[in-house]
Amino acid sequence: MVTSRQVAQLAGVSQATVSRVLQGSLRVSGDTRQRVEAAMAQAGYRPHAAARAMRTRRSGTVGVVVADITNPFYPQLLEAVSHALDAAGQRMILWNAGGPSETSALEAIGEGSVDGLVFTTITEGSDPLEEALQQDQPVVLLHRGLESARCDQVTNDNVAGGRLVAEYLAGHGHERIAYLQGPELPSTSRHRERGFRERLAELGVALAPELTVRAHFSHDSARRAMRGLLDRQDPPTAVFCANDLTAFGAVDGALSLGSHVPEDVWVLGYDDIEMASWDSFDLTTVRQPIAEMARTAVELLLERIDDRSLSPRRRKFPSELVVRGSTARAPVPVRAVDR
Amino acid sequence: MVTSRQVAQLAGVSQATVSRVLQGSLRVSGDTRQRVEAAMAQAGYRPHAAARAMRTRRSGTVGVVVADITNPFYPQLLEAVSHALDAAGQRMILWNAGGPSETSALEAIGEGSVDGLVFTTITEGSDPLEEALQQDQPVVLLHRGLESARCDQVTNDNVAGGRLVAEYLAGHGHERIAYLQGPELPSTSRHRERGFRERLAELGVALAPELTVRAHFSHDSARRAMRGLLDRQDPPTAVFCANDLTAFGAVDGALSLGSHVPEDVWVLGYDDIEMASWDSFDLTTVRQPIAEMARTAVELLLERIDDRSLSPRRRKFPSELVVRGSTARAPVPVRAVDR
Repeated sequence: MVTSRQVAQLAGVSQATVSRVLQGSLRVSGDTRQRVEAAMAQAGYRPHAAARAMRTRRSGTVGVVVADITNPFYPQLLEAVSHALDAAGQRMILWNAGGPSETSALEAIGEGSVDGLVFTTITEGSDPLEEALQQDQPVVLLHRGLESARCDQVTNDNVAGGRLVAEYLAGHGHERIAYLQGPELPSTSRHRERGFRERLAELGVALAPELTVRAHFSHDSARRAMRGLLDRQDPPTAVFCANDLTAFGAVDGALSLGSHVPEDVWVLGYDDIEMASWDSFDLTTVRQPIAEMARTAVELLLERIDDRSLSPRRRKFPSELVVRGSTARAPVPVRAVDR
Repeated sequence: MVTSRQVAQLAGVSQATVSRVLQGSLRVSGDTRQRVEAAMAQAGYRPHAAARAMRTRRSGTVGVVVADITNPFYPQLLEAVSHALDAAGQRMILWNAGGPSETSALEAIGEGSVDGLVFTTITEGSDPLEEALQQDQPVVLLHRGLESARCDQVTNDNVAGGRLVAEYLAGHGHERIAYLQGPELPSTSRHRERGFRERLAELGVALAPELTVRAHFSHDSARRAMRGLLDRQDPPTAVFCANDLTAFGAVDGALSLGSHVPEDVWVLGYDDIEMASWDSFDLTTVRQPIAEMARTAVELLLERIDDRSLSPRRRKFPSELVVRGSTARAPVPVRAVDR
């Protein structure tokens, strides 16, 4: 059996350097890493993962926890995370949160099957996150943040994004505005709403309580909520949705009643996932730089795996309003007081 | 430190039974498993994963390889696989095929980080699959099959599905039919086309070569292909698309030219993912029983992990035509010879 000592001799480096390459350490230069990997390939060195994990306490694997992969935002985020991990030579374990999986993500890190965790759908009161932080495990929050958590966090500036939408709608003279809220707990949901409300208030536009409906980030509940809003005697002229999936549900709700977007009602989303630009939706939305955020989260996590003593870092990425046909191609609908 | 012997005493079972529970063996009854797990929890027994893997040669983890998680079919399939694995107490590692990931899936199984692999996007000439089979590793193919591979396979009857669409279109008097093909290699793509062509030929309807366009299972290329078809002097009256994502692109291509579905052209897909039933698409499509197929694949794989000597099994699930508004609410469009 080939040993790491033989690999070191072949590559002309120390055995410690070979170990660092096996650990995926960032302190090895790309050049040295290549030389060591070439030597491993040449010598046919293939450490058994378990034996390696025992020896190096590194699995070369990063765990990602996600709540709902059937929301198309998450596959797009995961693909970006997966590419960033690939580029760093790391493997990805994915857990679909909610079931027994979330606890098993924590067990995995406790047991050394993964070196660190990316939480993409964290909310207040997550036991796995709290335990991971108590155990001082490497963790990064991506997309959803948590004010109270002392750990690396990469988010979009959701408050600023909400404000952008408020300014855009008020600037076009909308006075009867509805909001399809996300769930109560996620930071994305809370911050988008806070920015939207704050800026509308500053601009003297009221957000009527009866036009604020919880839609739970799902197509079905958004569709139902939109039908309720459009069936009112005083329907809204614009509907801001807490994410793009919700906006697709709102568009479909309007369609199901024979209402036209944007002629009868404007619809706006948040995220700017690929589907938002499809002709069927042509959705005005707030763009968050998904790929860049994913790359940054992976970078921070790998640095922390290398050095747990770093103080927690927060990276907040700017948001941008992308105007498309779900609002722009028609004047503000006339408020229908008597339908 | 608590030992497995103490757990065995506490649960009133043999130490071998505790090992089998740790290995996720199917030969332990649900009742016994519960008793052992309760004893582990009570005693605070938490074997280090690496040590456990060394001892039992079982990681309790199944790897899943997928080519394109941004095609919404795959998140839906993965969620079904993830639920089935959760229910069996197994973890899931996900690899996004194509990058260095696919090779690392094979390394992971070679190294013992995973006990078996689910390939969801296999095509002819996959080195990782071939190597895995040569090494006699537990593998199951799900969704896409491979005639030549001697391993467990769970697929939809894609030939029958293609035949259903041919019968439906011919039965409604369509004579100018287009086909948006998938990529050349996947079995799904080849079998759907084979069934479609065979049945059309049997019914005496020609599939014109100039109306057969490759759309690569992507929204963008389908949209482009559809625009090309509709710009012809002799456009098709119906377009069958190799999967739902392709059909969404076709609908959007029609929309971008001001053409109406189904009044100007009928559009049909394959898979019946959730989005197919959204009002924006309201897509007639062929349903494959995604959740049932995922459950069966996990079942076969766990059986094989327990007993590698089983002969290869193939499970083919029936397909069903689901008729919706993209075809049904309008008569067959009149063939426009001169637009």
